Amino acid sequence: MMIPHIDIATRVYNHKWKIDPIVRSLIDTDFYKLLMCQSVFRNRPDVDVTFSLINRSKSIRLADVIDEGELREQLDHVRSLSLARGESTWMRGNTFYGKRQMFRPDFMEFLENLRLPEYQLERRDGQYELTFHGRWPEVMLWEIPALAIIMELRSRAVLKDLGRFELQVLYARAMARLWEKIEHLRKLGPELRIADFGTRRRHSFLWQDWCVQAMIEGLGDCFTGTSNCLIAMRRDIEAIGTNAHELPMVYAALADNDGELRQAPYRVLADWQEEHDGNLRIILPDTYGTPGFLDNAPDWLARWTGIRVDSGDPVEMAEYAIRWWQSRGEDPRGKLVIFSDGLDEQTIAALFSRFHGRVKVSFGWGTLLTNDFRGFVPGDGLAPFSLVCKAVAANGRPTVKLSDNPEKATGPAEMIARYRRVFGTAEGPRFDVIV
Amino acid sequence: MMIPHIDIATRVYNHKWKIDPIVRSLIDTDFYKLLMCQSVFRNRPDVDVTFSLINRSKSIRLADVIDEGELREQLDHVRSLSLARGESTWMRGNTFYGKRQMFRPDFMEFLENLRLPEYQLERRDGQYELTFHGRWPEVMLWEIPALAIIMELRSRAVLKDLGRFELQVLYARAMARLWEKIEHLRKLGPELRIADFGTRRRHSFLWQDWCVQAMIEGLGDCFTGTSNCLIAMRRDIEAIGTNAHELPMVYAALADNDGELRQAPYRVLADWQEEHDGNLRIILPDTYGTPGFLDNAPDWLARWTGIRVDSGDPVEMAEYAIRWWQSRGEDPRGKLVIFSDGLDEQTIAALFSRFHGRVKVSFGWGTLLTNDFRGFVPGDGLAPFSLVCKAVAANGRPTVKLSDNPEKATGPAEMIARYRRVFGTAEGPRFDVIV
Repeated sequence: MMIPHIDIATRVYNHKWKIDPIVRSLIDTDFYKLLMCQSVFRNRPDVDVTFSLINRSKSIRLADVIDEGELREQLDHVRSLSLARGESTWMRGNTFYGKRQMFRPDFMEFLENLRLPEYQLERRDGQYELTFHGRWPEVMLWEIPALAIIMELRSRAVLKDLGRFELQVLYARAMARLWEKIEHLRKLGPELRIADFGTRRRHSFLWQDWCVQAMIEGLGDCFTGTSNCLIAMRRDIEAIGTNAHELPMVYAALADNDGELRQAPYRVLADWQEEHDGNLRIILPDTYGTPGFLDNAPDWLARWTGIRVDSGDPVEMAEYAIRWWQSRGEDPRGKLVIFSDGLDEQTIAALFSRFHGRVKVSFGWGTLLTNDFRGFVPGDGLAPFSLVCKAVAANGRPTVKLSDNPEKATGPAEMIARYRRVFGTAEGPRFDVIV
Repeated sequence: MMIPHIDIATRVYNHKWKIDPIVRSLIDTDFYKLLMCQSVFRNRPDVDVTFSLINRSKSIRLADVIDEGELREQLDHVRSLSLARGESTWMRGNTFYGKRQMFRPDFMEFLENLRLPEYQLERRDGQYELTFHGRWPEVMLWEIPALAIIMELRSRAVLKDLGRFELQVLYARAMARLWEKIEHLRKLGPELRIADFGTRRRHSFLWQDWCVQAMIEGLGDCFTGTSNCLIAMRRDIEAIGTNAHELPMVYAALADNDGELRQAPYRVLADWQEEHDGNLRIILPDTYGTPGFLDNAPDWLARWTGIRVDSGDPVEMAEYAIRWWQSRGEDPRGKLVIFSDGLDEQTIAALFSRFHGRVKVSFGWGTLLTNDFRGFVPGDGLAPFSLVCKAVAANGRPTVKLSDNPEKATGPAEMIARYRRVFGTAEGPRFDVIV
């Protein structure tokens, strides 16, 4: 009774695409990457860094799953991108965290002229060795698109064996699962604050975009925004983020002696607070161990807005921070604690009920927001896995990360030993790294 | 990057529809209706019957939920339908239950010329009184479209308050729920036999069609077909069904004395077996109580292919039938038991594990296959409810149904008493009628 809905022009147009690009915009990236990039562009523009892809889930042999040609096509496509006019307008004209002109004109000019640098890709033992080498402010912008491309190519490789009906059921189940989580979270009440941090390990771009819409619809004001700039722009919501481990890791690698090394993490934040205030002054204390970092921190850091808990036992780390603020004469109830490590709705609910009222609690929900397809296909081929893209060297020196979970430590063994000694980091309990 | 997918011609074409018709074909009905219609057309073409809509879920005030004008439009649209050429070809040319030319040429000619007769619609106490009066073979074909229209108008009334996103989540959840049931059923192994009996209380036509596709995809050969002729034709699968309570109810109403009344249910099946064999010879024994029916049945009925269990405690009724076959010298392992009352995947699993191997087990899954939206909207406004459309009079005499569940008994009280006496029907335990 209906005319079949075939739009020949659209079909023909779509046939002209050689590939279906995964990353279609330079701002399809995390907001904190752009914030950090501006800081690096100002303070350390000439540092030479190497970023490297690391698949912590060795059992997933990415080079067997993902076609090398397709991977190169996708990476090459990212190199063809430049900042679009509308994207530049959004960055220049938007208010971020209540502040206009967050991005300086000289940085915007740099970004408008930027094309991402070359990549090196090799296969070894069923894995891809994907590295990026060059000037820090350029190379660092590869991290998120590289991760998103690998994640989505892996999804596509699994999905291509499914029929039209199976695909429909798959996404119906994923939608139903996320909606159930959201209904669960809604029960926590109107003071919950939660943001999407799921760009890097998303199932796909379209799926992340759907997840954000679901959060908008289901959580209302409890959903504070997304780390993804492109989605924030398109959905007209807040872009969320501050800074990450790469800053202290590179600053530390550049230190010429143990004294400089010990001060490097604080130096990062001293540079940071020159430019940022309010909710952008969030301490990420775990790069070389949270307890040591806080114990040795200068008093001005205790006056910052809050901390982000990204490894270790989140309860223990947040309790440590609360005691630290109290010891420095600060009222924890005015401080923000952002949990962002391996969250799902149960952990969010548990942390919220424990800390709500004692501090301002907020959540950066990542992989299990935007990539929870666990159990949906035989062999669990769509389950998320632990993929990172890290700065591994700066000016020829290896970087080191210890974190509050020894499973997440990176760097050469002898360097890890040196950092442990300098930072007085105990090798705490190990936690499984799932996502 | 993609041209927006707007097909202007389709949009304009759709705008021309005054209504969105729910029933768009005379064969969007249950297969057994057509089989029974042919039998009635041959054996009792001139009986004058009245069919009436009965909402057993009084708490759902249909006349408050469904607009009378829309209801009339939908019913009028059904009256505008006639058998389409392709539908007639399918009925004439198809093989049903292994038999060609199931439908006789004279019946097909009748059907090709048929338009459904008038309806009477009134509102009373928040309910619709919808009745159909006329020649039995014509009026009987109103049952399924009338039910499907009321059910879908009720769904639409609830859905019209939902936004685009909420609708997407709603159907995602319904798909995920059905798929979970199917995965559960698949575990019962390759000997499961299950058919869709959900036309009359479906959420909507499109949803029933999706459910059938899901069963095809998920259960393969365990899914034996659908009772819906239009979907069977379009999806190229078996149309399933045999006969229903209206035959003994009308035959019984026409009986002139207690002796004829007592024999009426057997007379129905004597007429039936003149035309049908194999899987079409299925006894529906519960119209006036299964135990009495079987105890007094002639021996030739014990040689029929099987029985359908449609009310009462299904375990008890099936065990009764097994003992009955044994008492008549028949091997139950060669007999088919079709369960069709208020099934869901748990009851199917329980009945299958109890009777598999002892008889041939089959399931006619209805409402909770095609209309399980329980718990999905506030106030549970999409939960299925118990709506029937029954023959209430034949040649001016009221019909009576006792069934194996007193809650399902219909007819005037004094007539129910007479039927109980004639058929020796004990008033067994009551079971909640949910769907």
